[in-house]
Formats: sequence, C-alpha cells, structure tokens
Amino acid sequence: MEFSAQQIADILGGAVEGNPDIKLSTFDKIETAGPAALTFLANPRYSNFLYTTDAGAALVSRDFTPTQTVKTTLIRVDDPYASLAQLMALADQMLNPQPSGIEQPSFVAEGVAIPADCYIGAFAYVGAGARLGEGVRLYPQTYIGRGVTVGEGTIIYPGAKIYHGCKIGRNCIIHAGVVIGGDGFGFAPTPDGSYNKIPQLGIVEIADNVEIGANTTVDRATMGRTYVGQGTKLDNLIQVAHNVEIGCNTVMASQSGIAGSAKVGSNCMVGGQVGIAGHITIGDRVNIGAQSGLHSNTADNQTIMGSPAINARKWMRNTGYINRIAELFERVNQIEKTLKNQ
Amino acid sequence: MEFSAQQIADILGGAVEGNPDIKLSTFDKIETAGPAALTFLANPRYSNFLYTTDAGAALVSRDFTPTQTVKTTLIRVDDPYASLAQLMALADQMLNPQPSGIEQPSFVAEGVAIPADCYIGAFAYVGAGARLGEGVRLYPQTYIGRGVTVGEGTIIYPGAKIYHGCKIGRNCIIHAGVVIGGDGFGFAPTPDGSYNKIPQLGIVEIADNVEIGANTTVDRATMGRTYVGQGTKLDNLIQVAHNVEIGCNTVMASQSGIAGSAKVGSNCMVGGQVGIAGHITIGDRVNIGAQSGLHSNTADNQTIMGSPAINARKWMRNTGYINRIAELFERVNQIEKTLKNQ
Amino acid sequence: MEFSAQQIADILGGAVEGNPDIKLSTFDKIETAGPAALTFLANPRYSNFLYTTDAGAALVSRDFTPTQTVKTTLIRVDDPYASLAQLMALADQMLNPQPSGIEQPSFVAEGVAIPADCYIGAFAYVGAGARLGEGVRLYPQTYIGRGVTVGEGTIIYPGAKIYHGCKIGRNCIIHAGVVIGGDGFGFAPTPDGSYNKIPQLGIVEIADNVEIGANTTVDRATMGRTYVGQGTKLDNLIQVAHNVEIGCNTVMASQSGIAGSAKVGSNCMVGGQVGIAGHITIGDRVNIGAQSGLHSNTADNQTIMGSPAINARKWMRNTGYINRIAELFERVNQIEKTLKNQ
Repeated sequence: MEFSAQQIADILGGAVEGNPDIKLSTFDKIETAGPAALTFLANPRYSNFLYTTDAGAALVSRDFTPTQTVKTTLIRVDDPYASLAQLMALADQMLNPQPSGIEQPSFVAEGVAIPADCYIGAFAYVGAGARLGEGVRLYPQTYIGRGVTVGEGTIIYPGAKIYHGCKIGRNCIIHAGVVIGGDGFGFAPTPDGSYNKIPQLGIVEIADNVEIGANTTVDRATMGRTYVGQGTKLDNLIQVAHNVEIGCNTVMASQSGIAGSAKVGSNCMVGGQVGIAGHITIGDRVNIGAQSGLHSNTADNQTIMGSPAINARKWMRNTGYINRIAELFERVNQIEKTLKNQ
Repeated sequence: MEFSAQQIADILGGAVEGNPDIKLSTFDKIETAGPAALTFLANPRYSNFLYTTDAGAALVSRDFTPTQTVKTTLIRVDDPYASLAQLMALADQMLNPQPSGIEQPSFVAEGVAIPADCYIGAFAYVGAGARLGEGVRLYPQTYIGRGVTVGEGTIIYPGAKIYHGCKIGRNCIIHAGVVIGGDGFGFAPTPDGSYNKIPQLGIVEIADNVEIGANTTVDRATMGRTYVGQGTKLDNLIQVAHNVEIGCNTVMASQSGIAGSAKVGSNCMVGGQVGIAGHITIGDRVNIGAQSGLHSNTADNQTIMGSPAINARKWMRNTGYINRIAELFERVNQIEKTLKNQ
Repeated sequence: MEFSAQQIADILGGAVEGNPDIKLSTFDKIETAGPAALTFLANPRYSNFLYTTDAGAALVSRDFTPTQTVKTTLIRVDDPYASLAQLMALADQMLNPQPSGIEQPSFVAEGVAIPADCYIGAFAYVGAGARLGEGVRLYPQTYIGRGVTVGEGTIIYPGAKIYHGCKIGRNCIIHAGVVIGGDGFGFAPTPDGSYNKIPQLGIVEIADNVEIGANTTVDRATMGRTYVGQGTKLDNLIQVAHNVEIGCNTVMASQSGIAGSAKVGSNCMVGGQVGIAGHITIGDRVNIGAQSGLHSNTADNQTIMGSPAINARKWMRNTGYINRIAELFERVNQIEKTLKNQ
C-alpha cells in the first residue's frame, strides 16, 4: 500500500508544500519516522522535531509557520490530528479486515438468530434470548448472557463478558476482558457483623458509539439501570459502580472509578486514577485532573484537581505553598524569637 | 409477578399505611419509581423524594415521621434496607433461575467427579484432581486449575480463573474475570540488575460466604497461604498480594490494593482506591476513607483518612487549613513587615 | 520429597550450624514454620522470630550474628533470599510439572505450526499467521490473535489475550486475564462535542524475560510500538498506555498506570498505585513511592514521592509539617494578637 503526498492531500482536501510525488507507505511518530512514513504535527510540544525528522511527509496545520528550514514535504490541512485519524481509518480498513462467519466450536443457545454478517468466534457463548444486531462481531471466548441485546455494528473483543439482561448499543467497541453487568457491591449489615447480599436486579445499559477499554468493569444496578451515554469513551481498568449514570461524549482515562449512584455529566474529561464518591452529581464539561478525589457535587464547566478536588489553579498554588511549608515554619520560629527578645 | 402491598407487608412482618390492595410488580429507586414499583427509603438524603414519588408503595422505617403529605402507600418495617434485600432475594430466585447441567463442549479432567446438581458451562475447564462441592456453578469459560477445591453452593461467573491448588469455600460468589492464585510478585535482584523469579509455592484460601468482584486479583502465597476470611466482600478491580491475610466480614471497595504480607482485620470498611503497604497490620473495625494510603500498623476501631492516613477528623481539619495556606503565607508576610517597621 | 539440612547446604554451597541430619520437606515463613519446614531470614524486620521459630532449619546470611540462643539449625549462605529462590525453583520443578500436548477442543488457524513441545490448553485460540516458539505454553482459554509472535519458553496463563500483530519475547510469563494490544485511548474531538476514534495501527512489543501480572493491560501503539524492555516485571492490574516505552529490569507494583507516550527508564522501582503522566520521561534507577503522581520529567537516580512527586525526604518533611499545620495557624494567631496588643 503506497500513496503519494499529492494523493493524500487530495483525500484530505489539503495542500502540498514540497515534493508531491514522494511515496508514503506507513505512519510513524515525528521522532522516529523514516523516509517512507507520513507523520503529523498536532502537539506544539513536538514542533522542534519537524526540522530534523526523516519523515517523507508531515501533516501540519494550515497556519503553521516554520521557524527553521523544513526538509520534509508538508501537507497542510485544517486539523492535522483529525486528518491523520481519517487516513488511519482508511489504512485500518485495508490492513485489518474484520473477521466474519461462525467459528466452531462456539455456543449459541437454541432459538437465538445470528444475522448473516455477524462474526461469532470460537468458544464464544451466546445465551438464551440474546439478540444480536447486524454486523455484530463477537470475538473468541466472549460471553453474552441470557437476554442480552447487542446493537448493530458493535464489536466485542476476546473474553469480554456481558451478564444477563444488559443492553449494548450500536457501533460500540468493547475491549478484551471487560465485564459488564456484574453484581453491584451492595450488602446489608446484620447485628452479628456479617452481611446479607442485596440482590442486584437491575441492568447495565450502554448507549451507541461507546468504547470501553480492556478489563474495565461496569456493574449492574441494584434496581433500574447503570447507564453510559452515547459517544462516551472509557479507558482500561475503570470501575463504574451500580446505578451510576454517565452522560454523552465524556472521556475518562484509565483506572478511574465512580462509586455507586453517582452522576457524571456530558462532555467531561476525567484524568487517570480519579475517584468519584457515591451519590454525588458532576455537571457537564467538567475537567478533572488525574488522581483527583471528588467528594461533593460539582457544577458545570469546572476545572478541578486534588483530593479533595478544588479549583485546579488554586490546587496548583496550594501545592506550591505546601512545598515551601518548611520555610514558613522557620519564618514563624524567627518571628517568635524576635517577639520574645523585644 | 405481582404482589399487593398487604402481601408484601405480610412477608416482611410490616404494617401498611395507605392502600393495602395496590399491586406492585417491580422495584425502583425513589426518584424514578412508577405506580407499579415498590421503592424504599433507607438513606435520609433521599427523604424529600418520598413526598413526590410516583411509586405505588414505599418501605419506610417504623419510626419514620413524614414532614409533608405522603401520597404513596407506606409499608412500615424495622429496617427498610434489610426488608428490601429480603424481597429482592425472593424476586431474584423467581426471575433468575440458576442454570444447571453440563453444557458442551466443556473440559473436565479424567477422574474429577461432578456432583449431580452442579452447573458446568460451555468452555469451562476443570483440571485434574479438582474437587467440586454440591451445587457448585461454573459459568462458561471459567478455569479451575489442577487440585483446586470449590466448596458447595459456590458460584463462579464467566471467565474467572482459579490457579492450581487454591481453595474456595462454600457459598462464595466469584465474579467474571477474577484471578485467584496468580504468582505473587516476588523477585530477587542479581548483581547485574536483573531479577530472579522467586517461585510462588503457596496457595490462596478463600473462606465461606466471600464475594469477590469482577477482575479482582488475589495472588498465591510465596509459601503458606494468602487468606480471605469468612463473609468478607471484595469489590471489583482490587489487588490482594501474596501472603496477605484478611479477617472476617471486612468490606473493601473497588480499586483498593493490599501489598504483600499485610494483615487486615475483621469488620473493617475500606473505601475505594485505598493502598495498604506491605508487612503492616490493620486492626479490627478500622474504617479507611477512599484514596487513603496506609504505611504503618493501625490499631482497632480507628477511622482514618489521607495518604499517609491519619485520624479522619484531623485529616479534615488539615485539609481545611491547607486550603487556607495562601492566606497564612500572606499573614506571615504582613507580620514580618510589621516587625521590620517597628 | 525430603532433604536433610546437609543436602540443602551442599546444593547451595552453604554451611550447616546445628543438626545436619534434620529432615526438611516444606518451606514456610519464619513466624509459622513447623519442624519439617525450612525457613529463611532475609528481612531484619523478622529477626526476632529466629529465636522462637519452630522451623527445622533456617537460611541465614554468612555474617548474621545471633543476639540470643538459636535452637533451629542454621544454614549459612551468601544471600538467603537468593538461595531460597534457588531451592524453591527446584521444588517448583518437582511439584508443578508443566503441562504439554494439545488439549481438545482448541482452535489453531490453518497453517500455524505448533512446535512439538508446546502446550495448547483446551479452548485456546491461535489466529492465522501466529508464530509460536519452542516450549511455548498456552493455557486454556488464551487468545493469540492474527500474526502474533510468542518467543520460545514463554508461558501464557488462562484467559490472557494478545491482540493481532503483537510480539512477545522469550521466557516471558503472562498471567491470567492480561490484555496485550487493546486499542490505545485515542480520539479526535469534533465540533459537535463527539469524538472520532483514532485507529491504533501500531503494536505492542514485549522483550525477553518479562513477567506481567494478572489483569494488567498494555495498549497497542497508535503507530509504531508500545515497548516493555527485557527483564521488566509488571505486577497485577497495571495500565500501560499506547506508545509507552519501559526500559529493562524495571519493577512496577500493582495498580500503577503509565499514560500515553511516557518513557520509563531501566532499573526503576515503582510502588503501587503510582500514576505517570503522558509524554514525560523518567530516567534510570528512579525509585517512586506508592501512590505518587509524576507530572514532569525525572532525572536518573532520584527517589521521589507524593503527588505531584518531589524528593522523598522533602516529601516526608512536608508531611510532618502538614500534620502540624493547625499548630502553625494557632501560632500565627498568637503572634498577631501579640502585635496588636503592643
């Protein structure tokens, strides 16, 4: 697979600056790209590499102004990262054809209809009453419990498990090892100190275009549903507890956790290893720094950080002061001496 | 499935206040319940919803005194949450009959006896010398290693894996993706900077009535055993390292981790994302706030918070002061100016 | 299996002090060892147990000087922990013979050659174009995607999944539930607030002698590779994001996470629940305390702690001062009063 810089510019509606005939057959990062690679410059942090890269060509923004001589061919586009994504999707389709057909042995319960264009990998399990949309791809060793619905075009990677009754939307991507619909963590204490299990009778509902990263867990509701809204993207190893509701187009980085019955709004950006306490409400467009801990309701449009989380700028100032706290003790010691000697 | 408020009160030994004949066919949260739903009020945080809920009936405490007009039928019981659990367990039995029989293909090593009322799901693997108690349910794609013991009535959900030699008690619930008995993280450094693996020859022993959440990992001991005591409940994505010992009836929320050889007592409550250092001892009835870090031994009956964890009240006070640290610097600046000008 | 203290000393090149004929048939920790057990003393924290242990014999350092009477037989060696590891490896080979052969049903794509001494467990899946080295052991329910390479002697435990195109080195140990090669978390925002997926076209490459703990996830690169260097050991439930590079012989404890494109050097020791931000570089021989958060580049040979991480000693001092912050406020109050009254 090989394209010229001009062919790529034509696909993207971009403009070539340099050699339009240079042949490109791969993608690579700007630091390591060789002459056959197309690279890109989206993050200014990497702009110095543009002057030294061996890449055959680079996608740059239309308004990018070089500060040194550039030897690589430039392809100017509106949004280099979006253009890259567009090209990579094309390449992905060509390089990684999706599997189809039904591999054996697999287990499909009696009465379950498998649309013609689905893929059912070996050792996949589809329980009674499950409904699969067109083009669903169940990779090997996946588990689809009794009565589960999987919307058209959704891909479920190896070993992901969906417990009974849960609903997965259309065009979702569920990565390997994900567990959807395990029991929420609900127990009633008894007088002798032991716990009685609260049965978890609800479900998980995942809307359309959601992606869920490897080994993330989304628990079923005690009653009603645990909900992940349309277009939301969850990274790996995230915990979503019972009865949590997440809005649309929220992105959450790895190892974050949301405790029971919390609500997280739409278009939020949540850093890694964040903890969100149970029963609180986080608004829309909230940005949460990595490792933060949220203990209380948070209004729309906040940028917060720390544990307990506060305004991110205030957190940074506090952090600076804390790093000078030894100095402050020393200054107070001095003041006290001065006063004593007065 | 439909019950009247009176039928439900009779099951629970409760008293109806309102319409005893109202028909209830589902459970729901107080905020969203409709006329066919039974709801409950256990957490005072939600009491305002009682006056506006559309629920057909609500379980409330015998001593609950409404402060406004209540239109829903009340069923008064000693402990609304425990009563709810009791009803939900009944509903669960009716709605979610447990599977039974041996699905094919599954793999049972020669010589392993499967009691008549067990469930062995498709693609489950039972290794040589494994012993399964009566009523054990192995869901599809589970792995039971060589010589593993699983006590009667225990349920192991899809894709959970138990390495060789480990012992699981009776009436346990092991959720999807759990790994029990993986090698502890033990390596001996060598002079060239590389590491030699310390073989992990011990086992994991899980006592009766333990529940372990999805994708949690419990490592086998270097020698001896890693132990989880009776009635303890571990949430999802928890790490329990080699040679850890956890007492009875301790509940630990998601994404917490216990490092090697640490001991955690009985009846503790551990919040989410907590870290417990290796080789330390945590007493009984210790409450640990979310995201805490424990570096040293902790006596019985403490409530602690923070990293490093301290008394929770002190932690809250400190947090308040830290949020005023900029002010303190400013005040010290002023004092120094005043003294300079004296 | 039984050895005398003298036989063990001969294997290790050690010297017996006490009864050379005592028979030993198991290993145990010094606190709990009985008369048939060999124990060891490596961590001085446990030295008091040496005087009370019931162990038949104990490995101790050649230069260990008892401070009380020792009743157990001592076997003096250069490095008790390394000697223990050596003996345990011998015991492991005798007690836990590795499985071999091909169990059925398993799935091996047409054209894939399985070397004679491999083990392919039941329900394992080997995709088209995969290459397995000699002695590879694929436990039940493992998934080896299209075009994956697994080097000789590598063990992949039950239910681990390797996505297409990834490369695993020789003599690696990949524990149950590990996911290697899931899509990196890359999305391009669109004007309407939704996200377009950036296809992740790169791979994961794992060098030789790497061990990866249960349910850890290592994402494939956007382009190029995500890399884990030779001899590195990752504990359970760790997240390694796309395009991360980790050097050689680095050990990382459970539940830590490394964000996209970060570089971590060689011979580092990373505590549990640490977060490393994206696009930063951590040098060689860096020691990072548990629960730290790294936001910026870190030079070689640092010992750091906290979030944001600073020099560990400074962090400890700061922590001490923070615990006295209430006192400092009170002292400043007093000073202000004094000045007001002057």
